[in-house]
Amino acid sequence: MPANAFYAQSGGVTSVINASACGVIETARRHPDRIGRVLAGRNGILGALAEDLIDTSLESEAAIAALRSTPAGAFGSCRYKLKSLEKNRREYERLIEVFKAHDIGYFFYNGGGDSADTCFKVSQLSQSMGYPLQAIHVPKTIDNDLPLTDCCPGFGSVAKYVAVSTIEASLDVRSMAATSTKVFVLEVMGRHAGWIAAAGGLAAHQGIPVVILFPEIPFDREAFLARVDGYVKSHGYCSVVVSEGCHHPDGSFLAEQGSKDAFGHAQLGGAAPVVAQIVKDALGHKFHWAVADYLQRSARHIASATDVRQAYELGQRAVELALEGRNAVMPTIERLSDEPYSYRLGSAPLDAVANTEKFMPRDFISEDGFGITEAGRRYLLPLIQGEDYPDYKNGLPVYVSLENHTVPRRLPVFEIK
Amino acid sequence: MPANAFYAQSGGVTSVINASACGVIETARRHPDRIGRVLAGRNGILGALAEDLIDTSLESEAAIAALRSTPAGAFGSCRYKLKSLEKNRREYERLIEVFKAHDIGYFFYNGGGDSADTCFKVSQLSQSMGYPLQAIHVPKTIDNDLPLTDCCPGFGSVAKYVAVSTIEASLDVRSMAATSTKVFVLEVMGRHAGWIAAAGGLAAHQGIPVVILFPEIPFDREAFLARVDGYVKSHGYCSVVVSEGCHHPDGSFLAEQGSKDAFGHAQLGGAAPVVAQIVKDALGHKFHWAVADYLQRSARHIASATDVRQAYELGQRAVELALEGRNAVMPTIERLSDEPYSYRLGSAPLDAVANTEKFMPRDFISEDGFGITEAGRRYLLPLIQGEDYPDYKNGLPVYVSLENHTVPRRLPVFEIK
Repeated sequence: MPANAFYAQSGGVTSVINASACGVIETARRHPDRIGRVLAGRNGILGALAEDLIDTSLESEAAIAALRSTPAGAFGSCRYKLKSLEKNRREYERLIEVFKAHDIGYFFYNGGGDSADTCFKVSQLSQSMGYPLQAIHVPKTIDNDLPLTDCCPGFGSVAKYVAVSTIEASLDVRSMAATSTKVFVLEVMGRHAGWIAAAGGLAAHQGIPVVILFPEIPFDREAFLARVDGYVKSHGYCSVVVSEGCHHPDGSFLAEQGSKDAFGHAQLGGAAPVVAQIVKDALGHKFHWAVADYLQRSARHIASATDVRQAYELGQRAVELALEGRNAVMPTIERLSDEPYSYRLGSAPLDAVANTEKFMPRDFISEDGFGITEAGRRYLLPLIQGEDYPDYKNGLPVYVSLENHTVPRRLPVFEIK
Repeated sequence: MPANAFYAQSGGVTSVINASACGVIETARRHPDRIGRVLAGRNGILGALAEDLIDTSLESEAAIAALRSTPAGAFGSCRYKLKSLEKNRREYERLIEVFKAHDIGYFFYNGGGDSADTCFKVSQLSQSMGYPLQAIHVPKTIDNDLPLTDCCPGFGSVAKYVAVSTIEASLDVRSMAATSTKVFVLEVMGRHAGWIAAAGGLAAHQGIPVVILFPEIPFDREAFLARVDGYVKSHGYCSVVVSEGCHHPDGSFLAEQGSKDAFGHAQLGGAAPVVAQIVKDALGHKFHWAVADYLQRSARHIASATDVRQAYELGQRAVELALEGRNAVMPTIERLSDEPYSYRLGSAPLDAVANTEKFMPRDFISEDGFGITEAGRRYLLPLIQGEDYPDYKNGLPVYVSLENHTVPRRLPVFEIK
């Protein structure tokens, strides 16, 4: 009997993480001689700790195929970061115990930088415990901040959503500017890296006066107001795309809700109304603001076809890497050319991936800090190419909900502390 | 020489108001024996007052055709309400003067309830001044609150956006709920009528636990919290769609920014964070919130094909009504059947349309006030049917910007007070 595989989704979900799941499961199913069943963690790694496993082999081919066009996490995700091996060896050992109990020889972990770290540690521990396990990380993050890969699945679709929304809302405010709203502020995600905000800069190429507020560039109130004022004078209106991670020179965020998530990151939100009020107070312009929040990362209806394809391919490649005997690696996108866009799949060792954030290169951000350069545009544009519409029924997209049958437990209950 | 036509866009724009413009202009162009050029007001009725007219006859057929898939107002709109005839007869007389100077015999005004009122007054005055003018109102409002028509162009597309976004974000929060966000709050537009918020209720039919907060139903904090608590206990998560017009029993809005627009309506925004905080304080759940604002009404990329078609047809029908010799009327949608959906075009006299708001019928709202009934669903569903995707180039939608050539002035400058 070939070993089973474990697959789990980690951290904030995206509109294409299920496309990676689809790539993993469909590829594993094509190798029944090498891989048994794919067992998914219910709610991510918590499912492994709690031995709450989903038997994906009970899902129909059609249901698995439909994952490719279904947003969010079909098996549930979690924000739960395993502590270091030293501080909580018990949890890592439990994982190995569960894997052992369910004949799991492959560990596919689909997430961002934190989960790359977990994946690496599990791989290390399995070696030190003499348990044969191939741990492969499948990249996923709308923040696009993983190193050693040209881009991360999830990002291209958010970028497309932000670029399209910025263009559409800008046409709206342009229509209203003579007598009403002159400034529109859109808040987008991106804690530390401004990749998502940068996508709003693609609107500038269509003649739209757009100011980007990056987390990489400390907020300069006077320079910002001068730029907005200039655009309102020259174009009659101005759009602003502000990253939730935009902060003052002293490091404090424009908007902080004060609470922190499970990974210890500050939970942000509400930069848009702050920026809008700054404009109103200084320049007197009527404003509107929007906060896209989850809408941007779940908007499968406007996903980038390039992103969907890459998400699938990286899931597929993760399984192939495992079959090639690789361990503690992550499949990557290696860009070969901007235009025409071409890329190939590569791989990176997990110890080099884990816990490293990739920021926007400074030369992607315009000198004044409020826009993107031609280099930035050349980077972004391929990632939003193509539309990959879901099917619709009765006016609404057809998204699949899996049956998610639970695998019978074989171990005593484990208390998650 | 046949008389020219004047066309203007009024009030908040929509993703399909240009489809109505397209219907007006293309239909007028098919009757060169009866209608000369279509002159558009730059920035709505202000363009008529200022004699700032755009000659649409100089736009190519392709550019006019592209209006059908371009959101917002191609000629600019405005929030400018003419005062009563008694208080500012001077402005109405100026309109007639400009119409006379440019041989305008047809007045097509594309807007909501306020502009229906203006359109009616212009019609009255032209009669009393002995100037032959046919004034036809083309309905437009995302708020769907015009009487005597089954629905208003612009609404169906917002409804589709809200329903799709609610479903997508709900799948996201469902994925995260085990360890993180349990409640997602989406704020949508709709000052007094809950039509837009109601569209979020379409998600319930897909098994999503969604609570709708209507402006028609005074906010009942305890009942609301009990409903959210119940859903989190039964489903693990809950989505809330709150109308910007949701208010406390004493009439005060959940979120008021304090400022008012040109029509004297309170400018709203920020109900979502208020609702999210209420949940957090009482139940302790982690939340996310989004404010869709302009994104919802400019989202041409996810427009309802039914809405686009009706917007075009009502523009077309407005011109046909004028050619039939009608005056002071508005073309309407008369629903014949919910399923299969069928409708015919009718017309309504403007004096019956002006300044009347159509609220949600109580029997479209569930008894507890937090959802929609089967009757509400049967009303909404036909309006979101079909997708009408714009063309894309380089990953972004192709929206047209017209050349908007100005018609030479023939009158002295008029001071707009």
